[in-house]
Amino acid sequence: MLNIDCDIPVVGWDSLEPEETLLLIFVAFFAAKVGGELMERLKLPAVTGELIAGVILGPSILSIITSEHSFMDVLATLGATFLLFSVGMETKLSELKKVGLIAASVATLGVVAPFVAGYYVSILLNFSSVEAMFIAAALVATSVGITARVLQDMGMIASNEAKIILGAAVIDDILAMIVLTLVSGTAAGESLTSLDVVIVIAEAACFVAIVTILGTRMVRYASGKRSIKHDRTVDGSWSIHYNTRAFKRDSWLDKLVQKEAPFVIILIVVFGLSAMASYVGLAAIIGAFFAGLIFSDTKDTYELEHKFEPLNVLLVPFFFVVMGARVDFTDFASVAPLAIALTVVAILTKLAGCAAGAATRGEKTALIVGAGMVPRGEVGIVVAMIGLNMGTIGSETYSVIVLVSIATTLYAPFLIRTIVNAESKKEKRSSEWRFNLRSRT
Amino acid sequence: MLNIDCDIPVVGWDSLEPEETLLLIFVAFFAAKVGGELMERLKLPAVTGELIAGVILGPSILSIITSEHSFMDVLATLGATFLLFSVGMETKLSELKKVGLIAASVATLGVVAPFVAGYYVSILLNFSSVEAMFIAAALVATSVGITARVLQDMGMIASNEAKIILGAAVIDDILAMIVLTLVSGTAAGESLTSLDVVIVIAEAACFVAIVTILGTRMVRYASGKRSIKHDRTVDGSWSIHYNTRAFKRDSWLDKLVQKEAPFVIILIVVFGLSAMASYVGLAAIIGAFFAGLIFSDTKDTYELEHKFEPLNVLLVPFFFVVMGARVDFTDFASVAPLAIALTVVAILTKLAGCAAGAATRGEKTALIVGAGMVPRGEVGIVVAMIGLNMGTIGSETYSVIVLVSIATTLYAPFLIRTIVNAESKKEKRSSEWRFNLRSRT
Repeated sequence: MLNIDCDIPVVGWDSLEPEETLLLIFVAFFAAKVGGELMERLKLPAVTGELIAGVILGPSILSIITSEHSFMDVLATLGATFLLFSVGMETKLSELKKVGLIAASVATLGVVAPFVAGYYVSILLNFSSVEAMFIAAALVATSVGITARVLQDMGMIASNEAKIILGAAVIDDILAMIVLTLVSGTAAGESLTSLDVVIVIAEAACFVAIVTILGTRMVRYASGKRSIKHDRTVDGSWSIHYNTRAFKRDSWLDKLVQKEAPFVIILIVVFGLSAMASYVGLAAIIGAFFAGLIFSDTKDTYELEHKFEPLNVLLVPFFFVVMGARVDFTDFASVAPLAIALTVVAILTKLAGCAAGAATRGEKTALIVGAGMVPRGEVGIVVAMIGLNMGTIGSETYSVIVLVSIATTLYAPFLIRTIVNAESKKEKRSSEWRFNLRSRT
Repeated sequence: MLNIDCDIPVVGWDSLEPEETLLLIFVAFFAAKVGGELMERLKLPAVTGELIAGVILGPSILSIITSEHSFMDVLATLGATFLLFSVGMETKLSELKKVGLIAASVATLGVVAPFVAGYYVSILLNFSSVEAMFIAAALVATSVGITARVLQDMGMIASNEAKIILGAAVIDDILAMIVLTLVSGTAAGESLTSLDVVIVIAEAACFVAIVTILGTRMVRYASGKRSIKHDRTVDGSWSIHYNTRAFKRDSWLDKLVQKEAPFVIILIVVFGLSAMASYVGLAAIIGAFFAGLIFSDTKDTYELEHKFEPLNVLLVPFFFVVMGARVDFTDFASVAPLAIALTVVAILTKLAGCAAGAATRGEKTALIVGAGMVPRGEVGIVVAMIGLNMGTIGSETYSVIVLVSIATTLYAPFLIRTIVNAESKKEKRSSEWRFNLRSRT
């Protein structure tokens, strides 16, 4: 007779307490959604509410989510992955051509100005050069969600300014990812000889080029888009020949028997590219972003937005709550002045850079575009997280970056409204003046 | 000038290596989906493929996913939560009335027979009484997904047998949850006096009753279903009065400004009930199951299946991979005979119990129904996980239960086909015999 003892310990598996896990998941999710709801009612972005919920739950205040709960990091990582995938998916490569030169110059100057100024101001504030690089990179990215909302509320979403801002934001995202790629790559190679920097840049460029070019082609190939084009253009005999090949091509995806096969393949690509990006020394979320990018043109074919929306609703709040919980207020006296100084730098440089990029369109447009590009939001926080995870920035620097991201996002709506109102008054005055001139003649 | 040192360590946050995290997530997800795909091509359930992928990745074979990667447990917990929520959501309380007495007796006898036999056979096999209870509970639940598929392939999905099986499976799920509630509650209270058992049963019954009755009403209230009814039945003056209240009622959900507000509320309820269930000493997934149950009648209103499908596609595979990885083959010599013995018990008792429940419908129907209820699948594995997490069953017992769940699921299709073919031949023979009789007269 076999003898099995009841008291065998659960060997080899260090299990989490499931009760605590689910309770914390509940508390974090609930708090994030309440925070987001409150902020949205104040016409501010939900993200800030989720971050503040994290700060409140974190060690600085309630100590409900602390360093002990490292399992929350997995949910945060997944949240960041799907967040950046969605950002990438919104970035249609095929629409970049339509955006025009003006958006490109707004984006470029709006990236260069905050990066250069952010770096040198940080050095002046006694940050190390690696930390200054991360701070500068975090000041680069724009999150125009809040801007779009403010313009919508003011009935300006179809305006020229809005079009330039939304177009520039697309290019801005790509530039921000390239900056992040370079910064994280450079920071990972500890000794910063100029040869190393060149190698890192080459590696990053190769990754981005290979993924984007090869990826886009493979996606088109798999989804059978090209075959349809050829059906229309070639003559009968070719068409039959081509159809056979098109059938073979489409078939490997169609052959999959499991539920939601295209969605599963895309999830595998997202995880695969994220893992590959971190394998070549880049941030994992860069892989997720480029995965989004290569699927951006096929998103309607597979209803990707419908599929990823529930994942984002569930997982992204954990990212922001965990990021908020990591903000460390134990040394508030030293963090606050740095945050204020860098917030001023962040606002002024973006405003000036972007306005300069749109200067040819007149003062009003230039200023509105500049103000619209001010909010930093999620990508800045992602940059801060990467620096913290790499151990290249300290927790104080991390807190500074998160505070700057929150501050720019909260301030932007007021700035946009102020500028629009001031410029409208000016216009009114000048048109009254012109009217007066005309009526006098 | 402020002085911030670059070498400040990341204090107070024991971070996971994001590279390793995403690589393992990729490997686990990819392996699960490949395993599922292969199994589905063999017309077997994807679940078994995902479990086998877990066994291969686990310490028994490749040692890629081991006890060190406790972060996978969070994903597994979330997977189990959404899996059981979906099972609950498929269990429409309002349709239970239609199922009829025959399905109820099939379900009840199909639960009692394996539980009683499973318990006593386990005691005979020298398991402790607590372990025997868990094994018995794991043998109770039916997973009819594979049965539905086999019957569909055989063109029998609209048959009487299929209707009875699918109806009985609904009741079976509820009974299985009640059994699990009692078993996990009893096992948690260490000293098993009969008074304790009564208290546990009372607690569990209260939880289930309160959640189901109060929950269903609150859901109806919130979704404003009742107000519509009243609008139709009451007279003018009442209607106005009632409409005001109905408006107030509906409004709190409609007032929420965030994206996907109903979906967010339901997620909060799922996590809240799971946390609450484990707080009162039950398994967390019991809360998730009953959350599914109370939303089952409103799932079409909010397109819940569309929203939860992507979550299931992403998260449930992690549950099965982790469950597979926990199967311990280091003591295969002692595990295998136990697994074989209990598989035989599992098949015979379910077959006999369910056939007895459907005996009034003739031999053919009774046997097909009995065979159709044999596969155990996911709920049995959930029971095993709870026992392992509670520390009340050892890793050998856990492995035995998982093997029995896999074996019954893999064997069921053959059993169903064999019985259907044998019974068809018998019928043919008897009808030929009758035909012969008639043609003679």
